[in-house]
Amino acid sequence: MASKKLTEYAEATAEVRAVYDDIMATRKTDRINNFWKALASHPPTLRRTWESVKDVMTPGALDSLTKEMVYLAVSASNGCDYCIASHTAGARKQGMTDEMLGELLAVVGMANETNRLANGYQVEIDEVFRTPSS
Amino acid sequence: MASKKLTEYAEATAEVRAVYDDIMATRKTDRINNFWKALASHPPTLRRTWESVKDVMTPGALDSLTKEMVYLAVSASNGCDYCIASHTAGARKQGMTDEMLGELLAVVGMANETNRLANGYQVEIDEVFRTPSS
Amino acid sequence: MASKKLTEYAEATAEVRAVYDDIMATRKTDRINNFWKALASHPPTLRRTWESVKDVMTPGALDSLTKEMVYLAVSASNGCDYCIASHTAGARKQGMTDEMLGELLAVVGMANETNRLANGYQVEIDEVFRTPSS
Amino acid sequence: MASKKLTEYAEATAEVRAVYDDIMATRKTDRINNFWKALASHPPTLRRTWESVKDVMTPGALDSLTKEMVYLAVSASNGCDYCIASHTAGARKQGMTDEMLGELLAVVGMANETNRLANGYQVEIDEVFRTPSS
Amino acid sequence: MASKKLTEYAEATAEVRAVYDDIMATRKTDRINNFWKALASHPPTLRRTWESVKDVMTPGALDSLTKEMVYLAVSASNGCDYCIASHTAGARKQGMTDEMLGELLAVVGMANETNRLANGYQVEIDEVFRTPSS
Amino acid sequence: MASKKLTEYAEATAEVRAVYDDIMATRKTDRINNFWKALASHPPTLRRTWESVKDVMTPGALDSLTKEMVYLAVSASNGCDYCIASHTAGARKQGMTDEMLGELLAVVGMANETNRLANGYQVEIDEVFRTPSS
Repeated sequence: MASKKLTEYAEATAEVRAVYDDIMATRKTDRINNFWKALASHPPTLRRTWESVKDVMTPGALDSLTKEMVYLAVSASNGCDYCIASHTAGARKQGMTDEMLGELLAVVGMANETNRLANGYQVEIDEVFRTPSS
Repeated sequence: MASKKLTEYAEATAEVRAVYDDIMATRKTDRINNFWKALASHPPTLRRTWESVKDVMTPGALDSLTKEMVYLAVSASNGCDYCIASHTAGARKQGMTDEMLGELLAVVGMANETNRLANGYQVEIDEVFRTPSS
Repeated sequence: MASKKLTEYAEATAEVRAVYDDIMATRKTDRINNFWKALASHPPTLRRTWESVKDVMTPGALDSLTKEMVYLAVSASNGCDYCIASHTAGARKQGMTDEMLGELLAVVGMANETNRLANGYQVEIDEVFRTPSS
Repeated sequence: MASKKLTEYAEATAEVRAVYDDIMATRKTDRINNFWKALASHPPTLRRTWESVKDVMTPGALDSLTKEMVYLAVSASNGCDYCIASHTAGARKQGMTDEMLGELLAVVGMANETNRLANGYQVEIDEVFRTPSS
Repeated sequence: MASKKLTEYAEATAEVRAVYDDIMATRKTDRINNFWKALASHPPTLRRTWESVKDVMTPGALDSLTKEMVYLAVSASNGCDYCIASHTAGARKQGMTDEMLGELLAVVGMANETNRLANGYQVEIDEVFRTPSS
Repeated sequence: MASKKLTEYAEATAEVRAVYDDIMATRKTDRINNFWKALASHPPTLRRTWESVKDVMTPGALDSLTKEMVYLAVSASNGCDYCIASHTAGARKQGMTDEMLGELLAVVGMANETNRLANGYQVEIDEVFRTPSS
């Protein structure tokens, strides 16, 4: 089996199908993304990664839209083409508008710029930021 | 003047003071962070960066808290110690709780993990993600 | 000559051919990868890079398979598509199985996740890790 | 509670203590690293991250030393100071010698160099690397 | 409107056209790159980014060629395919030869290698580098 | 010997001293930076890295100042504290002024910003940038 093999439902083992079924039920869809079909070449990674993503993306103190936008922000910052495409779609599904995407990417851009200015100027952390906040 | 020189208000030129004044007025504070004091060694960068940050961080389709959390997410992902410290403080000032920080960093962590799994498995982008969404 | 020019053996200078010959002899193959054909547009880089790679990848305290897997791990972490493709092939040639690839990418993913958790939580290095280990 | 708070065993909740106990039992140690004490400020992240790390680092097709060295390689590549310090210690505990560390970092260095040469020269992936390998 | 929408001049608003006109006048060209056509989906980002790029890339203490090469160096280091392609073209337009590109990418490669060796060996900053230089 | 061990000249082997002597002669200095003293724990890495750096940094189509500034630009972009400190010193020694540093870091910042905007907007490479330039 090649590293780029995508495991379709029809050919999947019971172990893999169980994860696919949970993905489709949780996300209320009948599609499995290529990401999961690729991870299926190593079932323990498929299962563990899905369980972690499901846990982490469940709405809690942050809602689903905010979480999807943060996921997209990190993926755009890292330059992961697959993840940018899939999480742009995911965030839009949660209600992200063009205007919100524009503001999100503007923040991502500025953060990347000022991160490097802080590095390059070797800025010392202000004493006030070092104090635990509570 | 050294690269690590911090320009204090008392010694600043009128051009630099004008930016410092606008920072303090906009942020309703009487402190200037070391980041801006370091940028003051190159006044055009100080002015341009502040104008951009002010524009980008103004609440719009996304509120100030969401923007600060995205800024922190990118900074944590990039490993910029200064920016992590200052934007953790900034997000807390906008209302970020420990629970929200915990969920934010959990998403940042998972995004960094799955970005690399998508890379490593050389996953092809799903056709459905390639279609413009409008 | 364009930056994307690939220099084929037939059109190569004696200086470039000498490197190509050494690559083919060392790797026991009759193919030159596009990477080397691209570097040939700057012969000093071709020669120096090949000499360094040859030195570094020679089995020593670490065997060839381990070295290829580490190369792949770094490339997957950095998101270099070319390098992921070529070093996946390289590691498989040295004996990497699907199971080993699965475990390797799982470690790469977790390292990327916990690197960002350590950043985001601004974790202080434990005193015990600061002590030289000898 | 501040972001840099470290939760000691004595003050930990039962939920956190259960994870700490499992860490100490699994690793046959009576110390909890600062990393885990920091994650304890968000117990779901502490539990999930520990379960994932435990799963991923269990010897399988790759042994513990190889896994620790890959973890260190990624951390050195990413520049995570905490993770470099802790996984250098972890790999040494599994038997990494100075010579092995030297060869490991040499591979990490070369991979980072050639990743950028492949990027900069915009090298096309060889057709032979695109073919699934089995 | 989709995230991948490119706004052509003919369909652009007056606000967007004003930026396009300034880009073409400043660069003495009648083409607008896809980058700007993509940013046009969020006009404030288009305007702000163009104003910043124009400011930053104006020759000053560094000439245009040096600035374009630095831009390319960072883009190659970050692995941004679009930016590598566009700034390779930009630097060539300013006079970058194959030989200069070869030397530039060689420095980028070495910097990426030694950055990771410095990380991995946890090298302490020399006291002499800590002293402000003036 | 620990990973953070710095090998001083007095305790160095003949092999290591030969490299140190060449560094001091080439750079017309009587100091050895901590970077080289750390690499000395793995002599083949010390020798190979020094030979490569010496080759790459020799003035050619690009002068020494330009090369040092590119090295610094990449290091600031990557956030390598050691390398930022040492190459800021190196570039200043070659004549970099505060004004040049200001402009250099401004380009580094903008490149990091626009790299992420290009990623996030999933911008297609313009056909004209795909054509080999000669």
